[in-house]
Amino acid sequence: MNDFIFHNPDKVYFGKNQLEHLSEELLKFGKKVLLVYGGGSIKKNGLYDSIVTIAKNSDIELFELSGVEPNPRHSTVNKGAAICKKENISVVLAAGGGSTIDCAKGIAAAALTENADVWPLVSNGVWVTEALPVVAILTNAATGSEMDAWSVISNMDTNEKIGLGGTALIPRVAFENPEYSYTLPSYQTACGAFDIFNHILDNYYLAGEATFDLLLEMQEAVMRTVVKWTPVAMKEPENYEARANLMWASSMALNSILDGGTVHGCACHFMEHELSAYYDITHGHGLAIVTPRWLTYILDEATAPAIYRLGVKVFGIPENLSAMDGAKKAIEAVTDFCFNTLGLQPNLSDLGIDEKHFKVMAEHACAAGSITGPKELTPADVEEIFKMCL
Amino acid sequence: MNDFIFHNPDKVYFGKNQLEHLSEELLKFGKKVLLVYGGGSIKKNGLYDSIVTIAKNSDIELFELSGVEPNPRHSTVNKGAAICKKENISVVLAAGGGSTIDCAKGIAAAALTENADVWPLVSNGVWVTEALPVVAILTNAATGSEMDAWSVISNMDTNEKIGLGGTALIPRVAFENPEYSYTLPSYQTACGAFDIFNHILDNYYLAGEATFDLLLEMQEAVMRTVVKWTPVAMKEPENYEARANLMWASSMALNSILDGGTVHGCACHFMEHELSAYYDITHGHGLAIVTPRWLTYILDEATAPAIYRLGVKVFGIPENLSAMDGAKKAIEAVTDFCFNTLGLQPNLSDLGIDEKHFKVMAEHACAAGSITGPKELTPADVEEIFKMCL
Repeated sequence: MNDFIFHNPDKVYFGKNQLEHLSEELLKFGKKVLLVYGGGSIKKNGLYDSIVTIAKNSDIELFELSGVEPNPRHSTVNKGAAICKKENISVVLAAGGGSTIDCAKGIAAAALTENADVWPLVSNGVWVTEALPVVAILTNAATGSEMDAWSVISNMDTNEKIGLGGTALIPRVAFENPEYSYTLPSYQTACGAFDIFNHILDNYYLAGEATFDLLLEMQEAVMRTVVKWTPVAMKEPENYEARANLMWASSMALNSILDGGTVHGCACHFMEHELSAYYDITHGHGLAIVTPRWLTYILDEATAPAIYRLGVKVFGIPENLSAMDGAKKAIEAVTDFCFNTLGLQPNLSDLGIDEKHFKVMAEHACAAGSITGPKELTPADVEEIFKMCL
Repeated sequence: MNDFIFHNPDKVYFGKNQLEHLSEELLKFGKKVLLVYGGGSIKKNGLYDSIVTIAKNSDIELFELSGVEPNPRHSTVNKGAAICKKENISVVLAAGGGSTIDCAKGIAAAALTENADVWPLVSNGVWVTEALPVVAILTNAATGSEMDAWSVISNMDTNEKIGLGGTALIPRVAFENPEYSYTLPSYQTACGAFDIFNHILDNYYLAGEATFDLLLEMQEAVMRTVVKWTPVAMKEPENYEARANLMWASSMALNSILDGGTVHGCACHFMEHELSAYYDITHGHGLAIVTPRWLTYILDEATAPAIYRLGVKVFGIPENLSAMDGAKKAIEAVTDFCFNTLGLQPNLSDLGIDEKHFKVMAEHACAAGSITGPKELTPADVEEIFKMCL
């Protein structure tokens, strides 16, 4: 068991009737607010109008940056940061899913630098300790960005998708109203849910005997919830319980409560980021394609007991098997969840991806030399896993 | 499902080698530190010496208040607050279990008032929004005070034990080293563990159909961990895994992660506070005596399904029973845990308590008229439950 630090000062307002607290929270930081949003779904569901009304009634001056991409671009971050500098913005308000919140975090960090381009900050792996405050209104259960210290920014000029992290990037306040996710299509719901699932699995103790039982128990509790409620949300998009369970699961998966000294391998995330960087595919779909192949690739005597435990605790497979047989059944259950329950297309070739860039993508994914985790992965390993996904 | 706010800015250093961060954290608040501790166990286990050395090496001026009682008295809080005022203390450092941390919180609140007596603040139910910063070094997994907004202060002159709460009372920093609990006797380990268990049960959704599945799953995960690891810690006091699981469970039970809009009945806690206030018994032991009787008293058609679920999920009782039979088996399992696994004496009469004060204690416990929760309890109900405990 490793030592760890837990610290998450984000204040979360969860539920249906919380937006009334928006102005009091924004005004703690100042009156000039940059509203960041994506393709306009917040205009359809009424959230945009609510924000404008609240701002008007509270004497808040609202500036806007719209059109944030599903994999937010550094060029969009640069536009937002320029507005912040020019208008002397006091707080960045993100209204949307994880991409929008990630973009807002990038803007908040870049706004306090002299450089007009955020990319050097991102690519140099600087840990951000100073940024404008970020307030998030979440509309999509997925990335956990509403409660974590990370953002992921893409540079389409260089085919790079890199994490920008820092304590200053944890949103000061987050509003989570499950109703805002009612309009999310089934495909996006499925992709978001698998992102949540994988955030936990990428951090689950898969090698040897686990000793921090409480942490495993809680990780499994959140994964079970995702497995149970995602098909409900896909079938009944306006089922409040389903949307609420998924939304809070999104935050739990990455707010550090489930860390507890585990070693962050993030293997699937590192591999998937290459797929989105090169092909701009939906992150959760890429994860669903990679994850079962990764589990198959790392399965051996050392990892079998933990993979089997996952199958028993999360998918309810029988407890009377050998570790190896149980682990295989567990991987079957994960596979079934990805491609039957969630209905995601199982192969990279289904998304028009071939092996052309696999070698360079694998090297990119192992920028640090290799990917750590239950099994250390070299570029050759990653290339092999990509090929298994074809 | 109810709306809720989650906000816990406490920074926790968990593990064996974290005390090296003590001085940097204390110095964020200032150089004058009031060290609060209890009967001197921190002198036996070396923690006291470590703190003194760290203070000396960091140019921190250390003042001391020792002798905090297991149910900390308002008179002790008053002594500490007087030192803070006289010496212009910048931060209150608690080193001990929940009682010591509770006392430190009382001191931190009282230090900023003009009154020499903290009791009016406690008895008037003031929500504390201004206090000196509190830093806690936890030595006993039990009360959750290391991560929550509450303290419980006793006035032995009036036989009152009352909670003092407030956002300003959440420790700014907590150090949790499971090794500090190695010297804890088996009886104290058992009492602390049942306090943790009951913090969750007192907040578990016991009436009707639960809808916030993620929350129930996580509550059950923490309760299962307590049930699994407490007997290990009792048998092997220096088992790090057992102590670590219990210590983090203590924090999880009350750091608001397991709240999620549940209605805090705290029925058993309200009833037990009367027992400790009148008879100065160990809080967790009182809870263990009250809890199975309370469950028996509130068992009916409405509560049976949830009590049965608790039995299935936490104690592994069979799933093929009727709700009522299953609930009875669940209560048997809780009873067995309290009096066999934990080995606690099952009756108030074992502790020399008779029914002499039950009537007035019951009225006290229902100071607000009644105790809310899965079943509203009137003074007559509480008196009846006390009688069941004899």
